[in-house]
Amino acid sequence: MRLSELGEFGLIERIRKTTPKGPGVRIGIGDDAAWLECKNRSFLITSDLLIEGIHFDLRWTSFYELGYKTLAVNVSDIAAMGGRPTYLTISMGIPVNSSTKKVEDFFRGIRALGSQTGVTLVGGDTSAARLVFVSASLIGQAPFGAITRAGAKEGDDIYVTGTLGDAALGLEILKKNQKVKKWDRAFLISRHLFPSARLKAGLILAKERLARAMIDVSDGLLQDLGQLCKASKVGAVVWSEALPLSRAYHSSMSKNGPVHALCGGEDYELLFCLRSRDRARLEKVKKRLGVRITCIGKCVPSRHGIRVITSKGKSLPVPLMGYDHFKSKFPVLTS
Amino acid sequence: MRLSELGEFGLIERIRKTTPKGPGVRIGIGDDAAWLECKNRSFLITSDLLIEGIHFDLRWTSFYELGYKTLAVNVSDIAAMGGRPTYLTISMGIPVNSSTKKVEDFFRGIRALGSQTGVTLVGGDTSAARLVFVSASLIGQAPFGAITRAGAKEGDDIYVTGTLGDAALGLEILKKNQKVKKWDRAFLISRHLFPSARLKAGLILAKERLARAMIDVSDGLLQDLGQLCKASKVGAVVWSEALPLSRAYHSSMSKNGPVHALCGGEDYELLFCLRSRDRARLEKVKKRLGVRITCIGKCVPSRHGIRVITSKGKSLPVPLMGYDHFKSKFPVLTS
Repeated sequence: MRLSELGEFGLIERIRKTTPKGPGVRIGIGDDAAWLECKNRSFLITSDLLIEGIHFDLRWTSFYELGYKTLAVNVSDIAAMGGRPTYLTISMGIPVNSSTKKVEDFFRGIRALGSQTGVTLVGGDTSAARLVFVSASLIGQAPFGAITRAGAKEGDDIYVTGTLGDAALGLEILKKNQKVKKWDRAFLISRHLFPSARLKAGLILAKERLARAMIDVSDGLLQDLGQLCKASKVGAVVWSEALPLSRAYHSSMSKNGPVHALCGGEDYELLFCLRSRDRARLEKVKKRLGVRITCIGKCVPSRHGIRVITSKGKSLPVPLMGYDHFKSKFPVLTS
Repeated sequence: MRLSELGEFGLIERIRKTTPKGPGVRIGIGDDAAWLECKNRSFLITSDLLIEGIHFDLRWTSFYELGYKTLAVNVSDIAAMGGRPTYLTISMGIPVNSSTKKVEDFFRGIRALGSQTGVTLVGGDTSAARLVFVSASLIGQAPFGAITRAGAKEGDDIYVTGTLGDAALGLEILKKNQKVKKWDRAFLISRHLFPSARLKAGLILAKERLARAMIDVSDGLLQDLGQLCKASKVGAVVWSEALPLSRAYHSSMSKNGPVHALCGGEDYELLFCLRSRDRARLEKVKKRLGVRITCIGKCVPSRHGIRVITSKGKSLPVPLMGYDHFKSKFPVLTS
């Protein structure tokens, strides 16, 4: 069935019926606003926009994957504050001749990650549009207080969760239909389509008061490190050989070098800063984080800016701006 | 300056600098998420989408007006729950060759109504897009509990604030460049461009426990009354001669009859149901509401559906569906 046959109200009714009523939802989908309970006397809110042709390509992204990813990128923002996500609103523009099944697949993707992360859909809006776009707002709690980008100090260690650059390589494989070993291909593409928001790690780092400043790596390591450094008024040294790279990344390393790990977007790993004296405490909780963590550099005085250095002490040229949606530049590192 | 020169981060910085820090904002624009205080242990959230060519036309809508209206339609949703709005996130798609001034004008429009209604901008997202669209999420409090669409009972009186159909007539004047008396023209167009969210009325009706069910008239009276009746499991009789019409509406009445008042969208008036025995109590608070209210009909058993009748007892044919974004039908009443 096409959306033009089902109609807006029919669609909303279907979404409402398939959405489980979550905890704390006094009024969910279908009224003028949702009415929700609030613990901790405070809450977090983050909003993200995903537009066809800019943030995703329907040639290689299914609606299920789009739904999953929409929630994942927002959960990642809540994780980067050390929070726990709770309620979601989705506003969606979509061509009227689209099949109803696509929209239902989208919300299946939302529910799949929602049930893993404790997120309930509580409202939103739909409209006919020439292309597909999704605007999400995710509410969260900050049971241990929120961790901003602004708390890093000179001398702090810089850590990152997981591995870097996989999602950007995955996207490149999809775009250029590159030949890569079967398993590497599957791994890298899944890192692009199903980003892993580091919810557990973010919560533990907040609870144990380990991360002094935190951000998620969405626009590329250097770009997001730049944001953190700017907010914290520090500079940074990154050790290029310390960057955590996956085996799949390594096998295509010869061609690319560390450029995707430094500048590639959509990793949705957490980047955080730690007092040096807290290293031992971090070691103790390491296993509970649910993901590997790697020390990739140090905070330095802000006048030094951001530098990437090799083990031989050689500086790699650093493009301070990564991906900018209005400037649309993707920097290429030539070392 | 063009957005392509200023860049995304430059733009966000400008918006951040011009946004006053509101009460209860622990962390505002510029981090992974905003961190906000929450009174009353509960909150409301509503989301709305406005797309160029569907919800607004830049030929006759300035960016300032678009900003104002974006907030107004969301405030209206919070008002319809009997709530008070607090925090706003805005996600915006806009062509990269747009001038920075346009975006600044948009946020000036937001601030203009925001300062009147106690709303603070706390976050959002921006992206390049082929056309302009805005997705807003507005948080609110429900200090007296939320009023849903579902509380109406048979025998209840049906009331509406303000006058109906003006915004739809205003839009028609803009679209067809119709000739109307100067003052009527100005009034009707301003009703389309600067909708008046009935915040004070909604709050008082909630506080005094007068409205048993409430909705805002955004898609047309019959459509929204249909939603309220469906949720409340009642039918309704509307008296066509009782519909509150402005003087400007009356002067063009001969041509249009009550069709715009019954089916025209974007009035953003409040439609609410009242126990008959509460009439005297409503009379007492009437002056404090800040807007005229009119009894336009009665709730009846649901099997009777929704009927519009004249004083001579004649039924007007009622199209149950008004505007549907996927079906794109605008019904015409032929009586």
